[in-house]
Amino acid sequence: MKNNIIIQLDKNLNKSLYIQLADKLKKLIEDGVFQKDEKLPSIRSLAKKLEVNNITIVNAYKLLEQEGYVYSKKGSGTYVKRQDEDLSLNYLADENMELMTSGILSLSKNSINFASVSPTPELFPVEEFKQVLIEVLDRDKGKAFVYPEINGYGPLRESISCFLKDNYYIDIEASKIQIISGGQQGIDLLAKTLIQPGDYVFVENPTYSGAVAAFESRGAKIIGIPMEHDGINLDELKKYIDMYHPKFLYTMPNYQSPTTYSYSEEKKKELLDLAHKNDLYIIEDDFMSDLSYTDKKLPLKSMDKYDQVIYIKSFSKILMPGLRLGFLTTPEKFFRDIIKAKHTTDISSSGFIQRAFDLFLRENFWKQHIERVKKDYNEKYKLILKEINNFKKYNINFKKPDGGLSLWLELPSDISCIELYNECANNDVIIVPGEIFFIDNNNSKTNFIRLSFGSVNKKQIVEGINVIENCIAKLKGGNDENTKFIPLI
Amino acid sequence: MKNNIIIQLDKNLNKSLYIQLADKLKKLIEDGVFQKDEKLPSIRSLAKKLEVNNITIVNAYKLLEQEGYVYSKKGSGTYVKRQDEDLSLNYLADENMELMTSGILSLSKNSINFASVSPTPELFPVEEFKQVLIEVLDRDKGKAFVYPEINGYGPLRESISCFLKDNYYIDIEASKIQIISGGQQGIDLLAKTLIQPGDYVFVENPTYSGAVAAFESRGAKIIGIPMEHDGINLDELKKYIDMYHPKFLYTMPNYQSPTTYSYSEEKKKELLDLAHKNDLYIIEDDFMSDLSYTDKKLPLKSMDKYDQVIYIKSFSKILMPGLRLGFLTTPEKFFRDIIKAKHTTDISSSGFIQRAFDLFLRENFWKQHIERVKKDYNEKYKLILKEINNFKKYNINFKKPDGGLSLWLELPSDISCIELYNECANNDVIIVPGEIFFIDNNNSKTNFIRLSFGSVNKKQIVEGINVIENCIAKLKGGNDENTKFIPLI
Repeated sequence: MKNNIIIQLDKNLNKSLYIQLADKLKKLIEDGVFQKDEKLPSIRSLAKKLEVNNITIVNAYKLLEQEGYVYSKKGSGTYVKRQDEDLSLNYLADENMELMTSGILSLSKNSINFASVSPTPELFPVEEFKQVLIEVLDRDKGKAFVYPEINGYGPLRESISCFLKDNYYIDIEASKIQIISGGQQGIDLLAKTLIQPGDYVFVENPTYSGAVAAFESRGAKIIGIPMEHDGINLDELKKYIDMYHPKFLYTMPNYQSPTTYSYSEEKKKELLDLAHKNDLYIIEDDFMSDLSYTDKKLPLKSMDKYDQVIYIKSFSKILMPGLRLGFLTTPEKFFRDIIKAKHTTDISSSGFIQRAFDLFLRENFWKQHIERVKKDYNEKYKLILKEINNFKKYNINFKKPDGGLSLWLELPSDISCIELYNECANNDVIIVPGEIFFIDNNNSKTNFIRLSFGSVNKKQIVEGINVIENCIAKLKGGNDENTKFIPLI
Repeated sequence: MKNNIIIQLDKNLNKSLYIQLADKLKKLIEDGVFQKDEKLPSIRSLAKKLEVNNITIVNAYKLLEQEGYVYSKKGSGTYVKRQDEDLSLNYLADENMELMTSGILSLSKNSINFASVSPTPELFPVEEFKQVLIEVLDRDKGKAFVYPEINGYGPLRESISCFLKDNYYIDIEASKIQIISGGQQGIDLLAKTLIQPGDYVFVENPTYSGAVAAFESRGAKIIGIPMEHDGINLDELKKYIDMYHPKFLYTMPNYQSPTTYSYSEEKKKELLDLAHKNDLYIIEDDFMSDLSYTDKKLPLKSMDKYDQVIYIKSFSKILMPGLRLGFLTTPEKFFRDIIKAKHTTDISSSGFIQRAFDLFLRENFWKQHIERVKKDYNEKYKLILKEINNFKKYNINFKKPDGGLSLWLELPSDISCIELYNECANNDVIIVPGEIFFIDNNNSKTNFIRLSFGSVNKKQIVEGINVIENCIAKLKGGNDENTKFIPLI
């Protein structure tokens, strides 16, 4: 064993010695103290050095192997796997991909994660889903696994059509619904259908970076329209329409990501009129309308008289991300092209999951689930509002969203969002620096942070906000009067 | 009721009167005799006219409504749905999309379908899959539905790594495996990662049209390399490499689609050498290696010393298409780009299905399933070989594939594959005219038909081949000596 490394185990702790040892070894591997393919000390020598039984070492090594930290060679010993690469794969695949691949965001197991809007597993309706899965298998047998139609399993499209009418006053025939494997796929399909290289595409500024990535991947040029408290700036939109003749506007009218702002009813109407006059297609990404804590918010699509809005809805985000299911409404004009794009992309979404989800809707489990989840998130929402009350004294402002899973805080000029992100990360609290959501084609203020409470529990909210406040205070103290304001962009 | 329409029901038949009536009405709707939104006769008037009970009409209308042919308005009556549109959606989403959107292929419920390679539902391992689903839900609870890693659920990548070693002698670490939602998505991801507009891409000629569509959607120019009985023509390949410097070659080395030909071992070796010398990437689409009826065929990837082969494997095609699951192996160089493309495409494949399939592999159900399926298909293979024995006398030739789910028949110049397709379709037998699989950049012979036996049962094989033979004889008779050979391209 390397001589300069000291491992201390505490027999008085409530934690088994082998788990203590495994944890310490993990840390050494993660920190690169032990390198790939380096041999760990032999069982006997380490047991002797640490003054524990051989079996403690054996168990610790076994645990490390199960968790992918080491591998063993028969008769030779235990060796380190290449952890730098393997750990980089441990990222969770949620909407924060951009942060992660750019190296901004890295999560450890102890982090308090205010970056993710994904729900916590305790909220998933496991029993209900198990019930519908079994029912589908008993009812459909082998048929549950045949190729469904490209546009989706017929009965599911029927139940979604009813669902839209009952819940959102949206009147769409089943034949105009395209089933997709989650919201991101909807964005990708529309990019494939609508964008030619060099086309202009409008987005809100700031916006969801996963959409921008999909549009850019098709060679689109992205124009950001400033997002205001009550929706995008329509004057700017008008100006840009004449300049660029865009293929479409991508928008999230309710609880927009990342700003959490919702369009006012007036702006929704004006936007639709403007779109109709200019023959501008609107892609409405509705991932959050269901999570209203006060008045019910209807999708833009419910007001769309001219079939100008292509509506994408994901069932994954606030139901069960591992499901990968959603739908979009297809205007007559693009029907065939979207089917072709879907076929080229993945032939069809899982017919089995579609059959199960159809039953899930029909049994009314979805509505029950939404209500349960909403109650839980509303409590967290109220708690985090209370906890950040102190932030005011640092000149940190925000607009209450009254829905959704995030807060969007504007920082004063003397606290940089990147510095605050770094300071928090050093204290194992992950927040998202707002800068990364902005398109850099206009001089927007970008000094924001986003705090999401989808993945944190109440205890973590209290603890985490406290850590953030300390970090703010530290940065404030360090900056003081002698630091001048330097704009970030 | 329209006066010129006669519906006859037969009380002596073994079939309920209401089903007989529903069938006849369906036909009238499909044929456009009843138009969209046209009112069907009232229950009483039709009952009187047909001399049956009212309840017979009620039941028939109810059945039609369930099957999407009609809708009812309370207090008003029963109306025809727009069947022209709805029926066009009834296409099965398998690999024959191109045929269907181009209007070449349309299936009715009575057709004998030699066009599809999809397996019949009776072969699906429903009970085994139910078992693993329940086990996953009981074991992982809500966790079964969280976002998996973008590249795939870790334990599944581990079991696939073992699976590749045990079954195909392919040695790939779990960290180099990317889970995908079926083979087509693998093709789409690689197109996104590797192709810039204007790039050249090589394919076998003929080839799978779904791959060509994905490459073209990214702006690639497609060059077809002639496919021979033992693999592509390597001299042509060499020539074209120097001319076009392609991004990659897309190939199906075992039981190629549509030709059913497999590469000889020598050609596999030569191809790999050639690829290595010219730094040519090879995309190996392996959807069929498992279905060998004689000697075991190994993937090209098993001989790949230089990491020149990107290997795509679908678990959907011969397991359960409704599952949408597969994987690809990612060369180090493209690792990050493929992860990004996957994220932009659909964030990740269903974590729930991945967990279930992981268990399915670990419980050894996959191997048992392959063996069962292989036995069944081998019997059908032998039967169809026997049945088409007569075709020889019409100068129809083919090479025995000894694996897979199709035969590729070369027609003599005096029978056009399109005419034969049409003649068969008129007799409710669906075959695939070979022409549609060819890239038109060289003067290949294209006068082939493909007969697949994935979706037909033994009775249908005997009946269907008999129909095809009659159609051939008819065309032969009609063409006679006075028809000259006119090349198709």
